[in-house]
Amino acid sequence: MDQQGGRAALNTPVLILDLDALNSNIAAMAAFAETAGLALRPHSKTHKCPDIARLQIRAGAVGQCCAKLGEAEALAEAGVTKGLLITSPVVSVPAIARLVDLNAKAEGLMVVVDHPVNARALQAAAEVAGQTLDVLIDIDPGLHRTGVTSSEAAEALWREIAGSAALRFKGVQFYCGAQQHIPAFEDRRQAIVELAEQARRVIAALKEAGAEVSMVTGGGTGTHRIDVELGLFTELQVGSYIFMDRQYGECALAAEGGAALFETALMIDARVISANTPGLVTIDAGLKAFATEAGAPPILSGAPKGAQYRFMGDEHGAVIYKDAEPAPQLGDLVTLVAPHCDPTVNLYEAYHVVQGDVLRDIWPIAGRGRSQ
Amino acid sequence: MDQQGGRAALNTPVLILDLDALNSNIAAMAAFAETAGLALRPHSKTHKCPDIARLQIRAGAVGQCCAKLGEAEALAEAGVTKGLLITSPVVSVPAIARLVDLNAKAEGLMVVVDHPVNARALQAAAEVAGQTLDVLIDIDPGLHRTGVTSSEAAEALWREIAGSAALRFKGVQFYCGAQQHIPAFEDRRQAIVELAEQARRVIAALKEAGAEVSMVTGGGTGTHRIDVELGLFTELQVGSYIFMDRQYGECALAAEGGAALFETALMIDARVISANTPGLVTIDAGLKAFATEAGAPPILSGAPKGAQYRFMGDEHGAVIYKDAEPAPQLGDLVTLVAPHCDPTVNLYEAYHVVQGDVLRDIWPIAGRGRSQ
Repeated sequence: MDQQGGRAALNTPVLILDLDALNSNIAAMAAFAETAGLALRPHSKTHKCPDIARLQIRAGAVGQCCAKLGEAEALAEAGVTKGLLITSPVVSVPAIARLVDLNAKAEGLMVVVDHPVNARALQAAAEVAGQTLDVLIDIDPGLHRTGVTSSEAAEALWREIAGSAALRFKGVQFYCGAQQHIPAFEDRRQAIVELAEQARRVIAALKEAGAEVSMVTGGGTGTHRIDVELGLFTELQVGSYIFMDRQYGECALAAEGGAALFETALMIDARVISANTPGLVTIDAGLKAFATEAGAPPILSGAPKGAQYRFMGDEHGAVIYKDAEPAPQLGDLVTLVAPHCDPTVNLYEAYHVVQGDVLRDIWPIAGRGRSQ
Repeated sequence: MDQQGGRAALNTPVLILDLDALNSNIAAMAAFAETAGLALRPHSKTHKCPDIARLQIRAGAVGQCCAKLGEAEALAEAGVTKGLLITSPVVSVPAIARLVDLNAKAEGLMVVVDHPVNARALQAAAEVAGQTLDVLIDIDPGLHRTGVTSSEAAEALWREIAGSAALRFKGVQFYCGAQQHIPAFEDRRQAIVELAEQARRVIAALKEAGAEVSMVTGGGTGTHRIDVELGLFTELQVGSYIFMDRQYGECALAAEGGAALFETALMIDARVISANTPGLVTIDAGLKAFATEAGAPPILSGAPKGAQYRFMGDEHGAVIYKDAEPAPQLGDLVTLVAPHCDPTVNLYEAYHVVQGDVLRDIWPIAGRGRSQ
């Protein structure tokens, strides 16, 4: 659809994806994982987009992680069925029925489990459907979000799985979500190295009990350089590296002297719609255009140097600047960075994919709102 | 579609709308405005839903306010074209082209304007299309989001409009967004009464200049009892009263001794998906299930008394409770209130409309994501 100057004619606010930066980020992480000898199963909760999943798989990824069953269904509906791993337990009766349906369509589907009651429910549903369902044990790194909290609990859960004819044990998941944004690299390394001991203990206990732990999946964009040093993981489930955002932009992703591998690929274009106050213009992007839990979106271009964004309600934001010539004018385009990429993406129907000012494509965010 | 027990079988997280509470809220505000002798043009930025717009209009509303052109287009596409008022300036070249298209379909469409440059652009586009476009002057109540900031600016803008053959001046808008959530009623009253002086000055100057100010639109759920006392408005553009949310639940909406007119109609049903930690279970609703800028969602039912919600990432939240029997179990349904209704609604595709446990209907949120 290549449209010269097409970006400037888009209705705003609009979610912009820089194709060159995206491709560069995908290639850089693929090369990084290959060098480390680990498989790459990127997390689709970041992008929720079959087009991006296909680019990652083409670059060598073994599949896609999905935070929820609904995300996995959205990928499968678009034909992306390879190596799907659902990284949260699927627990409710209607959800387990959908899981079994998806397992019939998406070969090699995997789901994590963290409780024997859930394992029994999965076993019962898979058995009735005449299926084998692949499962991983989720290990809690101390966040108390999901996962088993002790070796004893892991072993009891494994025995439940091992005794379930319709379930096949694949390995474990260990994701340190709370540590991804520790600002200093060395602090982050120390936290992860300590937490990894818990995973090692659980894995040792499972092996001692007779389990074959063929997969250890986890890791994130904030810790990927640390994750590969642990000798723990067989694969990485990084997500945000494809876009980068304010949160990761403020973290040192490599040790001192290490090169930055990833660049900002995701932006929001907005426009000035009111300009009646000295030092302040209002743009058409507010609480419904950005995730709000990670601070204000940084301004990338289109406003005087040093200008700051401030939320001004559902549909508006202020761009506040010190006296500058030329002052922003009605209709001017202002480009901002997502404060937190995943929930920002979840507000939009599509990526507008650009190279510079040329609109190259529009990719539907098929998994938007698919949190069920 | 009446489904007995249908609510309990829904996939979660799911946006639940209590039909009886909604109807009661709609009727209460309609009666309130009628008693006050004011027209009611409810703000659709809250619900973004043609079905709810129709209920409001059937109860006497003269039309719908829309924060953005995209919201108005979504209503018009669904056949709701009566009395649409766009409450933010429409400024960019592509947006003005769409505005003219919509004006051809939605008779009586109105848009606010706050700058002569914008008035000239609207005039040019309407003239080319052979149309008359109805406009209101937006008055800044001091928030500096949109609006003219002085009587002189208002008068200059009115002269621009009066000299534009394709524009028809209808009146003014004055919306005190920053004052809606002042917790104490008397503090809120004092703030609004003081701010209203600015609107009175601007309106007097416009009349002095020769303008016919037939409409004065504004007001909100937080200030509606104050707004009607001012003798300023001809109509109210209240929005959140239909749902109520945590923010308005924490405000006294009436003076001491005044009766509460509105009840909580909007909820989110979620389910327990992990229960491995004493005093804490994890539910399947996180940053992608609730607006996050207005604090945590209060828990309405399904958890021990006094239990609190804490965000736990994109797709999860913790329900934290003191020792209680029975403890929440895997699969249990937990019902929560939206912290801030408008941006919470904007995360979902549809309302699941219930009476008690019976699923009555599913209403599409046609304006979801239509911030352009």
